[in-house]
Amino acid sequence: MNLAAAVTGEPGAEQRRAIAKTITLLESTRADHRAQADALLTALLPYSGKSLRLGISGVPGVGKSTFIEALGLFLIARGHRVAVLAVDPSSSISGGSILGDKTRMERLSMDERAYIRPSPSSGTLGGVAEKTREAMLVCEAAGYDIVIVETVGVGQSETAVAGMTDMYVLMQLPNAGDDLQAIKKGVMELADLVVINKSDLDHAAATRAQAHISSSLRLHGMHGHAHDEAVWHPLVMQLSALKGDGLDQFWAAVSRFQQLQAGNGSFASKRQQQSLAWMWERIQAGLKQQFSEAPPVRAALSTITERVLQGQLAPSTAARELLTKFSGDKPS
Amino acid sequence: MNLAAAVTGEPGAEQRRAIAKTITLLESTRADHRAQADALLTALLPYSGKSLRLGISGVPGVGKSTFIEALGLFLIARGHRVAVLAVDPSSSISGGSILGDKTRMERLSMDERAYIRPSPSSGTLGGVAEKTREAMLVCEAAGYDIVIVETVGVGQSETAVAGMTDMYVLMQLPNAGDDLQAIKKGVMELADLVVINKSDLDHAAATRAQAHISSSLRLHGMHGHAHDEAVWHPLVMQLSALKGDGLDQFWAAVSRFQQLQAGNGSFASKRQQQSLAWMWERIQAGLKQQFSEAPPVRAALSTITERVLQGQLAPSTAARELLTKFSGDKPS
Repeated sequence: MNLAAAVTGEPGAEQRRAIAKTITLLESTRADHRAQADALLTALLPYSGKSLRLGISGVPGVGKSTFIEALGLFLIARGHRVAVLAVDPSSSISGGSILGDKTRMERLSMDERAYIRPSPSSGTLGGVAEKTREAMLVCEAAGYDIVIVETVGVGQSETAVAGMTDMYVLMQLPNAGDDLQAIKKGVMELADLVVINKSDLDHAAATRAQAHISSSLRLHGMHGHAHDEAVWHPLVMQLSALKGDGLDQFWAAVSRFQQLQAGNGSFASKRQQQSLAWMWERIQAGLKQQFSEAPPVRAALSTITERVLQGQLAPSTAARELLTKFSGDKPS
Repeated sequence: MNLAAAVTGEPGAEQRRAIAKTITLLESTRADHRAQADALLTALLPYSGKSLRLGISGVPGVGKSTFIEALGLFLIARGHRVAVLAVDPSSSISGGSILGDKTRMERLSMDERAYIRPSPSSGTLGGVAEKTREAMLVCEAAGYDIVIVETVGVGQSETAVAGMTDMYVLMQLPNAGDDLQAIKKGVMELADLVVINKSDLDHAAATRAQAHISSSLRLHGMHGHAHDEAVWHPLVMQLSALKGDGLDQFWAAVSRFQQLQAGNGSFASKRQQQSLAWMWERIQAGLKQQFSEAPPVRAALSTITERVLQGQLAPSTAARELLTKFSGDKPS
C-alpha cells in the first residue's frame, strides 16, 4: 500500500509518478495486476469522490482541446487542481488517442496543478469506460477537485461519459441551423449544458443555433416539471475558447448547476445510481463473456445464430436453447 | 402439431381458437408448456414474417384506440387482415390492460378479419415484450398481414415496441407548443412518423405543433445523409381519427415507407438486426436471472451492493467479486 500512500500524499513529482503507476496497473490485463489494482482501488476509495466530474464531448474540430486547456488554466488560476481524462474507444484501432499527444494542451500539461491522461486503449467501450472511471477515482484520491472527462462522438461513448460524470456538456459549432452538424440520436438529450464554441467566427449563426437548440431542448426536455425552480433546465450558451470569451459565464453556470444538484440531494443520488449502473453494466459484460466462452455455447452459437437469421428459429427459442447449454455447464 | 396446422389453416372460428390457445401456451410459465410452445413456434416460423409490423404509441387520452379502430376498419375494407397486440408492462400491476376491454374497439373486435389480443401481464417489460413478439409471429403465421402493436408510454415500452416493428408511429395531441405534453427523452427520435391526432379540435395549434415537431426532428435526425432520396425522413402529419380525416394520407405514407425500405434492402436487414438484438436481449436477461439466483451470489449481493453505495467498494471491483462467485459455482 506504499502506492496508495503516495497517491493520497503531498502533490509533487512523487505523487504524479504514483498516480501514473496506479493507473497503469489498473489498465493491465494481467490477473495478478488486476488483483493488486482492486486492493489499491479499495484503499483509495475513501479519499475519492470529492470532486466535480465534468463530461465534455463534441465532434472533431469543435475545439475541445482549446476549450479544455482554457478552462483548465482558468480553474487552476482560481485554486483548483484539474485532471483531464478521456474515453476514446477508437484509440485501440487507430493506435492513437484523442489525448495521446499532450502537445494538444501544451500549457495545461506543463502545469503542476493539472494531470492529463490519454484514453486507455483496450477493447470495448465498456472496458475503456471502466478504466477511465477507475482513473477518475485515483485522481480524486490524489486531491484533484475537478475531473474533466472528454470524448469525441464515437458510438455510444457520449452516453458512457454522461453516465460517469456529474454534469455533461455538449460542444457545438455555430453553423447549426436546420442543416446542423450531425448529432446522433439521443445525445442532445444527455446534455446539461450546450456550448456553441467559436461564436466569434459567425455571431449571427451562433445566435441562430442557440435559439434552435434551445427550442429543441425545451421540446424534448419536458418531464412535467417545466416550471419547477428546483430543477435544472439545460442551458445553451455561446463562447469562444480561443479568445477566452465566455469562460466565466460557463463556470458560473456549472457552479449554479452543482449548487442546485447538491441542494436538492440529486448530486449524491445521481452518483449512487451511476455506481449501481456501473456495477451492473460490468456484471452484464462479464456474464456475456463467461457465456460466450463456455464450451457448449461456443460449439452452438454460430449455428443457432444462423438459424435465427434464416428465420428457422425464433430468437426467444434460440436464447432459451443457449441458456440451457450454459447453465447445463454448471451443477445446479 | 394439430395446433400449428389449425393456426396456419383456413380463417374462421377454429383458427381463432387455435391462435388463442397457442398464445396462451406461449404465455404460460410452466416448463412443459414452454417446451411445447417452443416446438410450436419453430413449426410456425416458416409461415410468419409476411406482414407489415406497425408500432403505435402515445399517452393516454391521445386517442390510440379510436385511431387503431379506424385504421383497422380502413384496412379491412381494403382486403387486409389486421391483428392488434399490445405491450403494457403495467398491466401486471394494475390487473387491467390497455387492451383488456375489447369494447374499447367494439366494431373492430367484432370483425372476423381482425384479431385483438390484450397485453400479456407477466413480469418485466422484457418478458411482456417477448410474449408480444411471439404472439406477433403466431398472428403472421395465421395470415394476418398487418400487425399493429400498441403501447402507452410506460418506462421503456416505446423502445421495446419500436424494436419489434417495421415502422414506429408516435401519436401526439395538438396542444404541442413550447409547453408540450411530456415526451420522454429519446422517444421522439424513435418515430418514423408522428401523428398529431384530434387536429379538428384546434387546427391552429395542430399546425404549430406540426411545425415545431418537424423542426425538432430535422435537428435531431441528421445523420449525414440529409438529402439522400433513398432514406426515409420522419414525417409529421395531422389527422382526426374520430372523424376519419387523414387516414388515407396516413396509409399512403406508411406504404411509401414500406416500399422505400423494401427497395433499399433495409426492411429485411432491420428485421434481422431486430431478431439478433432480441436473442441477445433474452440471453442477457436469462444470464442476469441465473446470476441473481445462484446461491453464492444471493448470499453476497446485498452486502456488496451496500458497500458500493457506501463508497467502500468500487463498482468494478464489486462486479469482479460477484462474477468470480458466480463462475466459481461452475467447473471451468
